[in-house]
Parts: sequence; structure tokens; C-alpha cells
Amino acid sequence: CPCPLPRGDCSLSRLLRRLLSARRSLEICLFAFSSPQLGRAVQLLHRRGVRVRVVTDAQYMGLRGSQIGLLRRAGIQVRHDQEGGYMHHKFAIVDRRMLITGSLNWTTQAIQNNRENVLVMEDAEYVKPFLDEFERIWEEYNPINYTFF
Amino acid sequence: CPCPLPRGDCSLSRLLRRLLSARRSLEICLFAFSSPQLGRAVQLLHRRGVRVRVVTDAQYMGLRGSQIGLLRRAGIQVRHDQEGGYMHHKFAIVDRRMLITGSLNWTTQAIQNNRENVLVMEDAEYVKPFLDEFERIWEEYNPINYTFF
Repeated sequence: CPCPLPRGDCSLSRLLRRLLSARRSLEICLFAFSSPQLGRAVQLLHRRGVRVRVVTDAQYMGLRGSQIGLLRRAGIQVRHDQEGGYMHHKFAIVDRRMLITGSLNWTTQAIQNNRENVLVMEDAEYVKPFLDEFERIWEEYNPINYTFF
Repeated sequence: CPCPLPRGDCSLSRLLRRLLSARRSLEICLFAFSSPQLGRAVQLLHRRGVRVRVVTDAQYMGLRGSQIGLLRRAGIQVRHDQEGGYMHHKFAIVDRRMLITGSLNWTTQAIQNNRENVLVMEDAEYVKPFLDEFERIWEEYNPINYTFF
């Protein structure tokens, strides 16, 4: 399903369906995450026992409407960058076999009003480098590596 | 070559090499375009006779450092949205057969400092929907369709 995203509810329900198919693990690597529906879906997966890990951008996670605080309070592990540049990825990996990536940040604005694209791919050739990038970032953003000055 | 992007010159030269392989056509659909090196590459292709078409976001094209004005002055066709939402895509299509897409806007900030990904794909299955989306946007943003109020 490689597809530019139609706007609005249709694209949201397609994305929700993909996410809610997760049975074991969900890696999320998102510059901006403020969609309440997608936030609730991620919390539901966490409660079902799916191992959810979230990486996000430090500058954006505190903005009004961000879901990141809610996810943390629900007990989901979140890590963020500690750099000048943005953590600008917008991808998720379901059960280590399905990659969801594109231009879309998980915000209501983007889903409803923007021109966006989302690719869904299950070929290991595409999934593997994104999984590797996630693990690299996950370690790099481990709080034990923080530098204080 | 599906790959999260290493930062800096390496990723820029890889992207330049892909672009400069264009012989007939180049479609560019970019939220933000301010990299001088990538701007010069696009102008070079235009001078070589490659048919270059650019779609961009209205709110971002006028920002300081944007390449859009320079491209227009060089005689390259540019169209932009006339909407409230963002034209948030970040893709290019070389010779109607190679898709370059991901999280990367063509800005020096993104290339040098951000965590980004760029996918390069030649399967028609992936290229076709993006070509279709480009043609759809190209017609939709045709100035003859502007509404004034």
C-alpha cells in the first residue's frame, strides 16, 4: 500500500487499523505526536501488553496538545534527543515486520489539512534499516548518556 | 537504497548524485527548499534541457533562504498551494522511474543537523502513486484555478 494520503477520517482509520494490528511490539519515531485518537490507540496497545517504545523530538514534545506526557503517564517508555537539530523522522514499526513511514506527523492538523504521504512496507529490505536506526537512536537517547553542563 | 540518512556532506552528495542522473524529467514536491547546493543542481538540470517542475508550500516559499525565487528567475516552472494546510510532501521523481522520498526537506539545517530518512525506490509500484499525486497537485495548483475573494 504505497500511497499519498487522502485527507481526513479515511486516512486516520487506515493508519489506526495498521497500528492496532500490533501483537508484540511497536516502535514509534515521531517528530510531532498530538493526535488524540492515535494517542489512545497507542495506550490501548500498551495495555494489551504490546511492547511500545517511543522516540520523539525534545523541542516539540512539550508543546500544547502533545501526546507525549500522556503516554509517559500511562507507563510507556519515551526517549528524546538532546541535540540542536530536530529528530525529524516520522515512522513506526509494527511487530518488527511492518514499516509505516512518510511525511506525516501524527497531528490532527496534518491528518485533516495537509498534503501528506504514508508508505506501508513489509519487505525486510526496507524494514531492517529503519529498525536499525530506531535501535541506534534508542541507545543514543538513553538518559544514562545525558551530558550536563 | 532504503536508508536513514547519515548527516552532513555524505548524504548531500548521495542526493546530488541521484538528482544529477536525470536526463529527461524531474518532478520536485517539497515543503521547504533552501539548500543552495541542491538549488544549483536543479538549475543545472534545467539548463541541460531536463524538464523540471516544482511544487511547494505557499507559506514557506517566501522565507529567507528559500531557493524558490531563484528557480523561478532561472525559468523553472513552480506551483504552490492556495490552502490553509501545508503542502507537506518531501519527494522527487527522476525520469519518471526513480522516487526519492522521506522526512527530509531540502534545507541545510535538515541535511547537517537533523535525524532524517530518505528512501530511493525504482519499483513502479511505489513510483506510480507518487507520480499520480504529483500530476494531481500540479493541476490543482495551476494558477488558472486560483480563486480570489
